[in-house]
Amino acid sequence: MALGEKDWLACCGSVKFAQEMVSAGPFSNYQEALNAAKDIWFNKVDVFGWLEAFAAHPQIGESPSQNHKSPISAQWSKGEQSTALATATDSTLQELYEWNARYREKFGFVFLIFASGRSTPEILAELKRRYQNRPIVEFKLAAEEQMKITELRLSKLFPANTTDISTTKIP
Amino acid sequence: MALGEKDWLACCGSVKFAQEMVSAGPFSNYQEALNAAKDIWFNKVDVFGWLEAFAAHPQIGESPSQNHKSPISAQWSKGEQSTALATATDSTLQELYEWNARYREKFGFVFLIFASGRSTPEILAELKRRYQNRPIVEFKLAAEEQMKITELRLSKLFPANTTDISTTKIP
Repeated sequence: MALGEKDWLACCGSVKFAQEMVSAGPFSNYQEALNAAKDIWFNKVDVFGWLEAFAAHPQIGESPSQNHKSPISAQWSKGEQSTALATATDSTLQELYEWNARYREKFGFVFLIFASGRSTPEILAELKRRYQNRPIVEFKLAAEEQMKITELRLSKLFPANTTDISTTKIP
Repeated sequence: MALGEKDWLACCGSVKFAQEMVSAGPFSNYQEALNAAKDIWFNKVDVFGWLEAFAAHPQIGESPSQNHKSPISAQWSKGEQSTALATATDSTLQELYEWNARYREKFGFVFLIFASGRSTPEILAELKRRYQNRPIVEFKLAAEEQMKITELRLSKLFPANTTDISTTKIP
């Protein structure tokens, strides 16, 4: 499958990540792409690239901005937060908003969490717990959450990701 | 002792670090200042502050630039590198220069090492070894080296740091 820089950027907003994925590809299946993505994200993208990717996310509980760099990413982000939004009340959303601001004040970047299937109270509890961390610990955790988000998004680029064509025997 | 933001900034080039040291002070001795410095550096300064402090250092083997933010820091940096400079040859300096560039290309920030008493060949070997690290591992190591440099510089702000006046018995 011929995927370009824009596709990889929709999975993870680091330009270095997207460029390295282009160099490492093309991939014949999801697992190959995922292995490359993990290697690139944890071994090749530097801390500035991590921060760049974090900055591409909307604040949790908020919609991606109109001028979001990647329309696909903005759409996916909305989908990933659908459980959270369905379980939110005005007061939990307000609390989430306040804790997001405290988090950003302490760490300098947006609170990042693999939100798929998680309710707003769950996310809020996790945010309060993680707020206690040292900046370096939280920085690493955010990078791990980013990888989980990337993993889910990569799977959307490979809809038929159950079988590796190259290992399928011809009957 | 009344020390100001400028003094702390000469020890560690993060503005947040310097401001927090002012808030935490005044300190009656070196040990008190050091304890506060460690707590602030590892628990309160965020990753942007770490990068800001790293950026305040000259490349190892090079003199601080003319327009260095802190003249005291520039002078100290020169002193800390005196062993390295005394043991350098043209070829090792050239190699150091090249590896510094490779390091910066991979990690995005300057190679940071507690250089006091270390020869150029030693520093070069350490640079080559550390170049193999993952970006996040190297980021943490650089922050630890920064703390060692800060520790040495703090001791210069407290010249009589052997005895805590408050515990000295009057004969």
